[in-house]
Amino acid sequence: MKNLTLEEIGKKARRAKEVLRTLSTNEKNEVLRASADALISQIEMLLAENKLDVEQARKNQMAAALVDRLQLTEARIAQMAEGLRQIADLEDPVGEVLSMKQRPNGLMIGQKRVPLGVIGIIYESRPNVTADAFGLCFKAGNVVILRGGKDAIHSNSAITTVLRDALAKCSLPADAIQLITDTSHETAETFMRLNQYVDVLIPRGGAGLIRTVVEHATVPVIETGTGNCHIYVDQSADLSMAMDIIVNAKTQRIGVCNACESLVVHQNIKDALLPALAQRLKEKNVELRGDEASRSACADILPATEEDWGTEYLDYILSVKTVPGIEEAISHINRYNTGHSEAIITNDYHNSQKFLDEVDAAAVYVNASTRFTDGFEFGFGAEIGISTQKLHARGPMGLKELTSTKYIVYGNGQVRP
Amino acid sequence: MKNLTLEEIGKKARRAKEVLRTLSTNEKNEVLRASADALISQIEMLLAENKLDVEQARKNQMAAALVDRLQLTEARIAQMAEGLRQIADLEDPVGEVLSMKQRPNGLMIGQKRVPLGVIGIIYESRPNVTADAFGLCFKAGNVVILRGGKDAIHSNSAITTVLRDALAKCSLPADAIQLITDTSHETAETFMRLNQYVDVLIPRGGAGLIRTVVEHATVPVIETGTGNCHIYVDQSADLSMAMDIIVNAKTQRIGVCNACESLVVHQNIKDALLPALAQRLKEKNVELRGDEASRSACADILPATEEDWGTEYLDYILSVKTVPGIEEAISHINRYNTGHSEAIITNDYHNSQKFLDEVDAAAVYVNASTRFTDGFEFGFGAEIGISTQKLHARGPMGLKELTSTKYIVYGNGQVRP
Repeated sequence: MKNLTLEEIGKKARRAKEVLRTLSTNEKNEVLRASADALISQIEMLLAENKLDVEQARKNQMAAALVDRLQLTEARIAQMAEGLRQIADLEDPVGEVLSMKQRPNGLMIGQKRVPLGVIGIIYESRPNVTADAFGLCFKAGNVVILRGGKDAIHSNSAITTVLRDALAKCSLPADAIQLITDTSHETAETFMRLNQYVDVLIPRGGAGLIRTVVEHATVPVIETGTGNCHIYVDQSADLSMAMDIIVNAKTQRIGVCNACESLVVHQNIKDALLPALAQRLKEKNVELRGDEASRSACADILPATEEDWGTEYLDYILSVKTVPGIEEAISHINRYNTGHSEAIITNDYHNSQKFLDEVDAAAVYVNASTRFTDGFEFGFGAEIGISTQKLHARGPMGLKELTSTKYIVYGNGQVRP
Repeated sequence: MKNLTLEEIGKKARRAKEVLRTLSTNEKNEVLRASADALISQIEMLLAENKLDVEQARKNQMAAALVDRLQLTEARIAQMAEGLRQIADLEDPVGEVLSMKQRPNGLMIGQKRVPLGVIGIIYESRPNVTADAFGLCFKAGNVVILRGGKDAIHSNSAITTVLRDALAKCSLPADAIQLITDTSHETAETFMRLNQYVDVLIPRGGAGLIRTVVEHATVPVIETGTGNCHIYVDQSADLSMAMDIIVNAKTQRIGVCNACESLVVHQNIKDALLPALAQRLKEKNVELRGDEASRSACADILPATEEDWGTEYLDYILSVKTVPGIEEAISHINRYNTGHSEAIITNDYHNSQKFLDEVDAAAVYVNASTRFTDGFEFGFGAEIGISTQKLHARGPMGLKELTSTKYIVYGNGQVRP
């Protein structure tokens, strides 16, 4: 593909948007299934293009973990294809009328779900995002403009070409997906200000990427954020349940935004909980860093600094804070959390409700692992990210969060008096 | 009030937010009614402070219409107070659980309406916005930070003082409303980037103000926009109904965003419609500017230029475009509209549905005046503005649009396998 200007890309997106808005669910599903087939039939080509990226990355001495994220395999391509088929099976959010009421003057006013229009996705080096983001945006009737990382440019271009061909074969505009192939920062920043053509930006990647987008964008952004998630173990907690949940939330998967990073413990149970918990976490190689009170209960806990309370480790480390009661637990969490997922382990009715009411986060749990904050676990069947902002969408975002609404009004000649 | 730094204002807002989040509806209504009483009891003081602004404005040779917007009268203060009482009577959106479902693993997951937190309002010279915006934000459990225009600084400060006193008398934090008294542009721009403390910005004012906020803000913005609203008269329209609706939408109130600015007419009815319509609009002093085909039907129509199609006149002017059919009508509207309110007058079933489906705007009408796009007319009982963006809220925004949601999850020990 030659480098188009952003203006050209924007105009093509706008034309494609007009077509996508009118597609039936069946037409969209046909494209998704054809795209899945096309990815499978092009595995050789995709692997060859990906190899170019991987070789360049190794030449640039990219860290092994990042090279792994970049690398495609037959299995990973099959997974991308399967993801598109799963999206085809999901209910189409577009067209639902959320409510329709008759006003005293006879006007029938309803709110109908419609596509957002053109969605810009800015992401880092995982090439699978190219197919996933297209699938979700397309199912919700949206055009997508992708700006991936420089490291994955051959892979992203190859995947985009396959998807564009699949669209064209279904007699639909290939411009339903476009990739910005100029990966300069200047072009990315101009893209973030392309309000004339882009309705919303969704950055997918680390904290640095998201900060950059929020800082530079004039297009509205849906911020997917970091998770400094807490578990508070209340005095009345079932300690065995608490330990199972903490071990799960901390270690079931390290490096994800809904993993537990900080433990808050009622002071009256620190001696009963912490030594036994430390033992179990030690088996998983988790380092504990706590305040003085926690260290008096368990010698294995290293001293924590102020910085620990605000840190999303994404690592085998857990901070431990002791508190005299629920009030202080909530204050501590509301001060240091990132608005992602927070849990209380308790058997106290009043405290459970108070925690749900007063902790300010996208998802608040009683007696369950924070690891459930996820579009699949919440039953949405898919996920484009987890929003930690308060506008438009908060928490896991599925297909519905990729739509807007419009008011439709049926009259019979009404004028305003 | 002394000039606090934005940092100080932000910290105070954050503390007040913790209290507002936990208020019952009764407690909030008590404050709203006490605030209304306080405005009435302080009428003398409010008028005296407003007089300072008005005198300064006259000295600065402010246009008469703007001085009128700035001026408070006994009746206008009574209206502000009545507005607060009406807000007290509205249903509280906070606390509603939008849905709660049980997942296969037994987790009960629901979405609960919660306040947005801290809302920043940036507005121009109408001092009544001070009380209105406070009332709406407060009822939805939000703290408000106001940045009004320099011209209205005495009026806004006086109203804010009255409302803060009312809050304090109800033993609640006066910082639920704060006014930024430093009206410099630098401070306004810093305010727009106060992400640490402000959850959302709502600019209220003209297109220039809104552009500035969108351009500079890093805090998420709800854009309330301009309205280049169209009425399309289809071939099958009842022409008498069409004329009533057009006259209403154009002239019932000039200078508002939901007034009709542009007429689109099916070519087959131009001769039957335009001369009669021009006659009725002439009585209201409306100037018509049209394309050649429309001018061949009616000699009173002046020639339109390309610029006319995209202009929100807010004046006694209406543009007229002739089209060969519904396709071209929709294309024209989607090209030039501002995503506000668009209407079709028709008796054709297929065309009515096609128009509702394909026109891209916050509100789309069949056989009714665009002037109904309004929170009160839509039955919300109040309105903070009309959103023309697609994220979070689209169309008239009432109390619900001043809330966010959070997921609440009830478990009994679930961990992720």
